[in-house]
Formats: sequence, C-alpha cells, structure tokens
Amino acid sequence: IEAMLRTQGTLPVNVKFFFEGQEEIGSPQMPDFIASHRDLLACDWVLSSDGGQWEENQPVVIIGRRGLCGLQIDLQSSRHDVHSGTYGGTFQNPIHALARLITSMHGPQGEILVDGFYDAVRTLSDAERTQIAEIPFDEKQYVDELGVKQLFGEPGYSTYERAWTRPTLEVNGMWGGFQGEGVKTVIANIAHAKITCRLVPDQEPDKIAKLLSDHIARHAPAGVTFSVQKLPGSADPYLMPLDHPGNIAARIILKELYGKEPYVARMGGTIPVCGSFLKFLGAHMINFAFGLKDENIHAPDEFFRISSFKRGQEAFCMMLEQLGR
Amino acid sequence: IEAMLRTQGTLPVNVKFFFEGQEEIGSPQMPDFIASHRDLLACDWVLSSDGGQWEENQPVVIIGRRGLCGLQIDLQSSRHDVHSGTYGGTFQNPIHALARLITSMHGPQGEILVDGFYDAVRTLSDAERTQIAEIPFDEKQYVDELGVKQLFGEPGYSTYERAWTRPTLEVNGMWGGFQGEGVKTVIANIAHAKITCRLVPDQEPDKIAKLLSDHIARHAPAGVTFSVQKLPGSADPYLMPLDHPGNIAARIILKELYGKEPYVARMGGTIPVCGSFLKFLGAHMINFAFGLKDENIHAPDEFFRISSFKRGQEAFCMMLEQLGR
Repeated sequence: IEAMLRTQGTLPVNVKFFFEGQEEIGSPQMPDFIASHRDLLACDWVLSSDGGQWEENQPVVIIGRRGLCGLQIDLQSSRHDVHSGTYGGTFQNPIHALARLITSMHGPQGEILVDGFYDAVRTLSDAERTQIAEIPFDEKQYVDELGVKQLFGEPGYSTYERAWTRPTLEVNGMWGGFQGEGVKTVIANIAHAKITCRLVPDQEPDKIAKLLSDHIARHAPAGVTFSVQKLPGSADPYLMPLDHPGNIAARIILKELYGKEPYVARMGGTIPVCGSFLKFLGAHMINFAFGLKDENIHAPDEFFRISSFKRGQEAFCMMLEQLGR
Repeated sequence: IEAMLRTQGTLPVNVKFFFEGQEEIGSPQMPDFIASHRDLLACDWVLSSDGGQWEENQPVVIIGRRGLCGLQIDLQSSRHDVHSGTYGGTFQNPIHALARLITSMHGPQGEILVDGFYDAVRTLSDAERTQIAEIPFDEKQYVDELGVKQLFGEPGYSTYERAWTRPTLEVNGMWGGFQGEGVKTVIANIAHAKITCRLVPDQEPDKIAKLLSDHIARHAPAGVTFSVQKLPGSADPYLMPLDHPGNIAARIILKELYGKEPYVARMGGTIPVCGSFLKFLGAHMINFAFGLKDENIHAPDEFFRISSFKRGQEAFCMMLEQLGR
C-alpha cells in the first residue's frame, strides 16, 4: 500500500484495514464487534494473508475452512475417591462410564454415531471431489510425517476429503483418577473429557453442541451424574464460491506469478472471523497467502522465507491493480 | 504378652513376632523374605490384629480377602500431539482408542468380558451365600456413605457378594491430552490407563495379568501401538476354612466377650502377606481385630477407641489361654 501510494499517489480501490489479534484463542469478541460495527466495516470482500501455498512453486486457492464447537463433560459417581478393595464391584466407576460414553460417539471405523450429526453436511459434488483428487497425495509421506502406524477414518472418503470436507468429533483430553508412578488402588469420583468438533457446511455450532448434549444425556451410563459445559471459541464453517471475483482475481495473479494453475483446496482448521465477516457484512474472505508447510507454524522455531515475503508484496500489489481494472 | 509373663511367668503357647511394615505398599519384599526364612518363621498359624469388628457390640470372624494384580496400558498414535484441524479425521485418536479398549473389558451391567477371567473363580456354595445374607445390609446407608446415585455391578449377586467374593477389574486412572482450563484443539499422541483387579479364590495374579494382556492385544483398536507393563504389588486371594482351630478359638472368645455369635464375613481389600504365609509356611492367618468402621482408616484424622484397645488386650490374652487348653 505504502509503495503504491508513494509511486502512484493513489490506490486503484478503496481499502480498509482490520487487525485481528484473537484468532489463536478462537476470536471470542470478534462476532459481537463486527456485528455492532457493520457500517464502519462495510466492504465488498476481505483479503487475508492467512492461508498458504502448497509448495514453493505451486500456488493454491483455498476456498474453505472447517468450523468449530466444543464442550466439556464431567461424570461423577461417588462423593470422594474410595478404596477399590472395600467398594470395588458395587458401584459404577466413573472412568468406565466415561470410556463407554466416549466410545458410543464413534463407530469402529471412526464414523460419528451422534444422532443427526451429519444431517446438515453438504454432500460433495463430483466436481468438488475431482478438484480434491487433482491435488497430489503421498500417503507414505503423510504417514511418516505424522509418525502413525496407519491412517484411519470415516469410510468412503479420501484423506483430504476427510480433513477438509468431513466433520470430526475429537476428544482433546480425557482424565480421571491416579496418574502418578506405580499403583494406587483407588476408584476416582470424577472423570472428565474435553471434546471439540470440526464442522463443515452447513453445520451450525450451537445445533451440533445441542446434538452432543442430547447424545450424552441419552448414553450416560447407569450410576453416574453428568454435567456438560460449552467450551469457548465456536465458529461457523466457511466455504466460498470458486467463481467469486476475489478468487478469480487470485487465480489470474497466481497463474501469472507461478506459470501454472493453482490447486483448489480447503483447509481443515478454523478461522472464526471468516464466518463473522460473511454473516454480518455479507463479505467473503480471500485467503491470499504465501506461507509454506515446512515453516513450523506455531512452533518455537517458526520462520517465514524472505523470498516468500517479496513474492507476497508483489502479489498484493498485483491484486490491488487487478481489482482496479 | 508382657502382662501374662509378669503375672504367670510363662505363656500358654509358643509365640513368634512378625512385624509387617509394607502392607500399604503391597508388601513387595515379603514373599521372598518369607520363602527364604521358612525354618525361622515356622508356626501353626498366625494371629493378626488387622481386620475389624462390624459394630461396637457385634463381633465378626473374617475368613477371606481378595487378591490383587495390576497393569498399565500406554497407547500411542502419532509421534507428537498434532493440530486437530489439520489432521483431525485422518488417523486414530489414541484417546478414542483407549476408551474403546477400556469399554471392551466390561459389559453394560459391569460384568467383566475378558476371556477366561472368571474361569478359576469358585462358585459360592449355598452355605456361603447364607452366611453372607445373614449380615444386615442397609442399601440406603451404603448409598449415602458412598454418595452415589445408585449401586451398580455384576448381575446375580448381592452387594456384599460382589464386594467380597467376586473379582473386579477397575481402571484406577486414565489420562491423555489437554487437561487445563478452556479449549485446546490438539490430538494427543499417547493415552494411558492404570488397571487393578481384585481377585478371589482360585484366581492367580500372574494368570489374570496374562489374560488381560491377551485381551488388550486382541482388542487394541486399529491405528495405534500399545505397550503393557505389570504394576508392582500383586497378591494371592485368601480364604481360610471357618472350622480352622484359630477361627474356632476366635468364635468362642468373641461370643464370651460380646454375648452373641460373630458374623462370618470376608473383606474386599487385600493383605498380601496372608497369601505368603499360607503358600510358604502352610499357616493360615486369623484376623482378630477390634477396629471400627467409623475410625477413618487411612484418613488424616484416623483414630482408635481406648475402649477397643482395652477390649483387644483382654481378647488377645483370652486367645492365648484358649489355645493353651
């Protein structure tokens, strides 16, 4: 922007700046802030530098991200921890009950068994599946990166389809009882689990949280009481049309910069503000970004290539000029 | 002993003292110690002050205790914790796998589903069931003490039968992933569980641990690796004949002291040294004790009644005299 103002004295389009500093904590105040400043923030669409490229010489247009909702379950059985010799076998161990409840949420192949969970999920079109299938996937490399024994998940979908277009229900933490060295013959009185779901169009976070609560109420094993609390940071899933003017502009520029057509991909993660811009401003967000996968995102040794920084500067100038035509 | 020596100059029977200081940590060195000092420790039977009474005015003869064995399970999936947005839905979450594995060990009514687990368990005779049924059981009081919603356990048995004569498989601790405040959208790479079983005649700790390991190998969900380690402190179950000379003596004395017949009960907990005395010395152990249930055993405010102390002194003298007849 500064360079364009210095060299040309003016910008080809009107620009507003929006600095979002809450993304990593789920943007708890953004929806209310955007909703109550509709006039101030009004725009045609949003250009974001969050996202990334596929490889250093391969551009990508990212059209979707998954949403999020989460909750915590606390199961209680006895008033205090008790001696497993004296009482073991006569009442429900809350750890067993929690394990049973968690297990009731998935089938043996990873499919989600919560009633209604998939009801709102859009079926992938043949065109969408083809777009995803065009992106090279090296299963061995993926397995090696993760360090897993094998991949695993909902039958009938490829790994990228699972990661980008299918919702998940993951237990992020589960705990109860004795966790120290050695043995302690205690039966815990409380067991806990933290769950988050990644959501896809057209799932709504509040509705999914309600379905989960209903499932817990229906499947809570005998002999325990339970409480469910919503975790902060829910977000709508996000998907934009591939032929949105912003995406068209991005594809033209990326093709010019790299000499090849960009992949059309989605990402499995969540940027909550995408959904808020769309909901309150009617503005889609274009992910126009040049980060690479090996840059250790979120790690202590995270970095960004200087070459990518220069390419990004160039691309953003090209984008503004393209939009002014 | 001191009082009898002072007043009578001699004891009616020979007495050896054995001070066991490891009971609360599972007596790890006792079996080897007893096995390698058979001559030094040789005796007809053992008189122990571990045990207790039923009520202050109701004596009890305790003829059995459950044994113990335990192991820890560690399930691993990916090399490190990973982002649930990027990878969620494409590989096995080890917490889900652990929950499924734990759930496979019990039926919905608490029965244990590990193949062969009940094979060695002695069926209760009608006489044994009658003995147990003669002991008053107040379900409401038991439920209130525990603070549970309801009792729960293996069908076909009363609460005391479950607690004293049926084996258990209890998860004493289970943990994996994020346990802090709020939300963290991570998929853990490892999940853990600590399990102990209370054993009854004629279950053997090593055999039960092997059956559990086999079960884990057979039921470990796809996509995870697992390791199983034996926890320290296993113990044989213990049951002595009601007509053992020590029990006959105890019943005569208790009837004289309290003016009523003692209950014949077992306890659900474990005293490992019982099994070692029997195995290596051929000597049964009589539980001749005067502790009461309300004395907050193991709690910071544990106490013992001075009246019980005096009654115990009297009873132990009567026991030695009775045996000398």
